[in-house]
Amino acid sequence: MQNLLVELGERSYPILIGTDLYDRSEALHAFIKGRQVLVVCNTTVAPLYLERLLAALSEFVVATVILPDGEQYKNLDHLDRIYSALLEHRFSRNCTLIALGGGVVGDMTGFAAATYQRGVRFIQIPSTLLAQVDSSVGGKTGVNHALGKNMIGAFKQPQAVLADIDLLKTLPERELAAGLAEVIKYGLIRDLPFLAWIEANMPLLLARDPDTLGEAVYRSCQNKAAVVAADELENDQRAILNLGHTFGHAIETGLGYGKWLHGEAVATGMLMAADLSWRLGWLAQDDVLRVRRLLLAAGLPVVPPATISSDQFLDLMAVDKKNVDGRLRLVLLRGLGNAVVSEAAAPDLLLQTLRAGKALGEVVA
Amino acid sequence: MQNLLVELGERSYPILIGTDLYDRSEALHAFIKGRQVLVVCNTTVAPLYLERLLAALSEFVVATVILPDGEQYKNLDHLDRIYSALLEHRFSRNCTLIALGGGVVGDMTGFAAATYQRGVRFIQIPSTLLAQVDSSVGGKTGVNHALGKNMIGAFKQPQAVLADIDLLKTLPERELAAGLAEVIKYGLIRDLPFLAWIEANMPLLLARDPDTLGEAVYRSCQNKAAVVAADELENDQRAILNLGHTFGHAIETGLGYGKWLHGEAVATGMLMAADLSWRLGWLAQDDVLRVRRLLLAAGLPVVPPATISSDQFLDLMAVDKKNVDGRLRLVLLRGLGNAVVSEAAAPDLLLQTLRAGKALGEVVA
Repeated sequence: MQNLLVELGERSYPILIGTDLYDRSEALHAFIKGRQVLVVCNTTVAPLYLERLLAALSEFVVATVILPDGEQYKNLDHLDRIYSALLEHRFSRNCTLIALGGGVVGDMTGFAAATYQRGVRFIQIPSTLLAQVDSSVGGKTGVNHALGKNMIGAFKQPQAVLADIDLLKTLPERELAAGLAEVIKYGLIRDLPFLAWIEANMPLLLARDPDTLGEAVYRSCQNKAAVVAADELENDQRAILNLGHTFGHAIETGLGYGKWLHGEAVATGMLMAADLSWRLGWLAQDDVLRVRRLLLAAGLPVVPPATISSDQFLDLMAVDKKNVDGRLRLVLLRGLGNAVVSEAAAPDLLLQTLRAGKALGEVVA
Repeated sequence: MQNLLVELGERSYPILIGTDLYDRSEALHAFIKGRQVLVVCNTTVAPLYLERLLAALSEFVVATVILPDGEQYKNLDHLDRIYSALLEHRFSRNCTLIALGGGVVGDMTGFAAATYQRGVRFIQIPSTLLAQVDSSVGGKTGVNHALGKNMIGAFKQPQAVLADIDLLKTLPERELAAGLAEVIKYGLIRDLPFLAWIEANMPLLLARDPDTLGEAVYRSCQNKAAVVAADELENDQRAILNLGHTFGHAIETGLGYGKWLHGEAVATGMLMAADLSWRLGWLAQDDVLRVRRLLLAAGLPVVPPATISSDQFLDLMAVDKKNVDGRLRLVLLRGLGNAVVSEAAAPDLLLQTLRAGKALGEVVA
């Protein structure tokens, strides 16, 4: 088992990474205070893993909420189910919430923990690769709004994250790939050696070799934790973690939540960001094609949906939260392994990227 | 104009108290960053004061949300109107929210500011005495849930509070009295000289003499700020501010939100707490009757609703958030001017208080 500390002063917490981990009583008990525990899960994960977790919690007063599975349910209405369960069971400020599921369950449970009685404890047990490498580090919690993704939320750090590689055995292939998109992101934004490691180990990652997956999770969380520790509330540098996300959110919102997985949208978004960086003269064309090859090797989409016009893209990107006072700020690459937050992209270059379609990274006559 | 600093480290902020204040451009501009301002108001206050405020904000991009007036609208559904307005106007993380209204508007706007894009700035312009002396200090924000009052929320400090005494001129008598309940509370919990001052100045307070009201607001905020500064997140000592609130919340929930004003419920709740303190031997009977006289002088109710049985009271109080792991903790008085948080009240004594009805503070044969 590997143990990584996210350094955030009073709010520091450990990420435990390993196998045979999530239902180990002593690991859980170390982070629960009080006697009341609410486990939040979803309809996909619950049949697979909930029973073993509940068995490990037998000495607590435990309630469960099982949410429908999918980004389209990450909203205030479904959040209310968590509040209602807490209130129906008369849980006090001294209760602990446990999120057993992917990013949606983690984000919603974290936000409920941030806001139930103005804040209670919570523990993350991420069941997807994406949640293990992304949503479980950084304290971003929240829900979507019909008018924008992740627009309602809070910063809330968990007591601990238990990243159990065993849970990835049952992950659908598409979701494994979506998680790899975020793994690749850490290489692209700040860790070129890790990028090369991912390229070399892609076959083992796709074969779900536990040691290789564990290493990918560890190095991803390490990168994310370093960025978050330097800028917990995303005033500045932390925004590089959003590489591909402004484009990606536009894809998710434009298609309607749940059509593309978040990681899939981010993958294509990262290629769009790389393409735009190349058009700015910041990245070699070969680098853009290298990004594309790696995304394809992971089984990720590299062509934005044709149903979203460039005008729609612009419209959707303008409400994205990476804008200050209406100016379009994007995460771009000044070379592979070196992301920057920049307003340098002129509208005409951005339009070239938005119009490139399947020819991202290519000169179109 | 008086100026009081609420000392909370990085989150410190000033309360400006005076007349001719809320629409003074230079006061507002000092606390707004960015160009986007959303003013949240309600249907009662908007016709009286919104236009003058908007005139003072003419150089900003301003949007407004006008909520229906009343505690019964302080819920997730109406909160969503604020989120929707922010998103429809594409307001960024760099926007500022202004709450122009009573406690409900302040609590909802503050919670929206705490959670819109994980946190934006806000300014409070409380338009009721209760909001000026209570909700505008302490950073408690949130909404009600059908199963419990203030169960969803966050701690969020404003940039500033502008407490304009002029706004109290149009306050209905019942709301003035409700505000006086909280003013009296500060005397009861920690400031006996202030209690005597309130008794002596009740006629001037009821006549809305600006200097006397200003002094009451200042000394109330001073007391609250001192308690909050010592315990911002209500781990311990801050709970004394909830004198009368556990009983009061039960009244509000039992009758349905909006029947009694919050301050009215707290007034009766404080008398119930005094009565219970007396039954515990902590308070003289004369002190209980002194509390009752003062509440009556302010025009406040001193008899709990007969429609709520003592069993219902117990049921409603058990979900109140002042409980740790199911044990009933109450704010009680060890003498006037000295509140304590205690689990000392045995169930039979509590039942005597709940059954006293209009005979609170009296020995019933």
